[in-house]
Amino acid sequence: MKRVAFQGEMGAYSEVAASEFFNRDVIVIPKPSFSDVFDAVSTGETEYGIIPIENSLTGSIHENYDLLLEHDLVIIGEIKLRIVHNLMVNPGTRLEDIRRVYSHPQALSQCKDFLAQLDGVELISVYDTAGAAIRIRETGSRDEASIASEQAALDYGLEIIKSGIESNHLNFTRFLILSQSLEYEAKNSKTSIVFSAKNIPGALFKSLSVFALRDIDLYKIESRPIHGTPWEYMFYLDFNGDMRQDVIRRAINHLEEIARFIKVLGSYRKGEEVIGRIQERHD
Amino acid sequence: MKRVAFQGEMGAYSEVAASEFFNRDVIVIPKPSFSDVFDAVSTGETEYGIIPIENSLTGSIHENYDLLLEHDLVIIGEIKLRIVHNLMVNPGTRLEDIRRVYSHPQALSQCKDFLAQLDGVELISVYDTAGAAIRIRETGSRDEASIASEQAALDYGLEIIKSGIESNHLNFTRFLILSQSLEYEAKNSKTSIVFSAKNIPGALFKSLSVFALRDIDLYKIESRPIHGTPWEYMFYLDFNGDMRQDVIRRAINHLEEIARFIKVLGSYRKGEEVIGRIQERHD
Repeated sequence: MKRVAFQGEMGAYSEVAASEFFNRDVIVIPKPSFSDVFDAVSTGETEYGIIPIENSLTGSIHENYDLLLEHDLVIIGEIKLRIVHNLMVNPGTRLEDIRRVYSHPQALSQCKDFLAQLDGVELISVYDTAGAAIRIRETGSRDEASIASEQAALDYGLEIIKSGIESNHLNFTRFLILSQSLEYEAKNSKTSIVFSAKNIPGALFKSLSVFALRDIDLYKIESRPIHGTPWEYMFYLDFNGDMRQDVIRRAINHLEEIARFIKVLGSYRKGEEVIGRIQERHD
Repeated sequence: MKRVAFQGEMGAYSEVAASEFFNRDVIVIPKPSFSDVFDAVSTGETEYGIIPIENSLTGSIHENYDLLLEHDLVIIGEIKLRIVHNLMVNPGTRLEDIRRVYSHPQALSQCKDFLAQLDGVELISVYDTAGAAIRIRETGSRDEASIASEQAALDYGLEIIKSGIESNHLNFTRFLILSQSLEYEAKNSKTSIVFSAKNIPGALFKSLSVFALRDIDLYKIESRPIHGTPWEYMFYLDFNGDMRQDVIRRAINHLEEIARFIKVLGSYRKGEEVIGRIQERHD
């Protein structure tokens, strides 16, 4: 079976997204950092990696944009996972017993309306949501809770007191699937590139014109600083179509006249919005 | 004397930037969070606020872009402060005694080449650089150090063991100065706006065309998610010129045909790149 590296512990939202993308037909390998995920794929330790790239409430995960530029990996797919946050405790703990809640700072922030109703509860930021669940399980405490995925509750034997506690339910995280080599899908595809424009007037406008003049829809633009040249930027673009189409190759050729640097990150099928289903583990 | 609110403790880089911008002719008021800085100006507690908006290595401070949209304040100036990181200790502590280094995670990351040379030293992330300096001072410990500004070392009686320990010296943070009302500078100005484009083909390209067709130089584009409509974005633009010029007002009128929403954040004089000078405090 193929292997996919993800950042975090078992039960992390990245793991749920990986299982959904590969229809559970994959071995998930946890890694401590995003950089370790890129390394696992680059060295061939795993065939695939999965990284979060954007949340519909909090925006882009910029570290992963920078890592995409530094590594020679290819994006072969994406999936948009609906993020459902759950308050979970050691069995028997009641809502009114809770004195401390552990989770990733972003999860705590996304549940702040719910958490504001709990009187005198301390919020404690930790590195990842599944790690917070593990901590509750390991201490066995009866006055603490964590916020994590339903999968994490199942994996670590915790009881969900309340589900869907996020303030805004239109909360999706878009994940990218990385590989060493291209895997083209036939249709409904998009392409991701990164480029830096030459230092000429209207450079960004001219860069976007190569797509507009060919009626190629843009989905997203993201800018990141270039180290060593303050106030100049790398631009990351997602647009409709794939590199096997003449019109897309011509647009990229045209962009080469305007850009100082271009890298195609991959063409891949547009991802669906999904709700993660939980799975029983059989060790 | 006018007052300016900043996030952090005395000796924070934001405070150094505020002193430079106002030529020390200002009273600096520390606040715990960026949101508190916006509130201080909105309620009239202070005439001005200063916020970091972008670092030349790590990119934009997205929380502050979101806060600019939420509040009705005006940008009246900017300053680009060269960030010089210093390793500081209680007097008498030697480099080889250091076992733990406290600072903001971004400062630790920007000094990682220097820190990698220190054997067996634990790196501990705290909320801000000046707060790390205060901690060292308060514990009086002889085996700990912090990374902060020269001003923080002076303010808290610490000794700088090594100065300029950042890996990349082209490390600038751009700060914005906020006020309740416009203060126009005569020349060398730029304008910042935020807008969302209508859901039409080539919307971003058409939006940028209103500037390109009038030879108005763009300096920066930043995108942020719109809550409630996943995968649509607010765009923040900085461009040359100010709102008293016909050509700029015409460009904005033209953009209104394409945009769903526009807010002008301010026209202000382009900021200089400066190195912060330290100041003796007289309490």
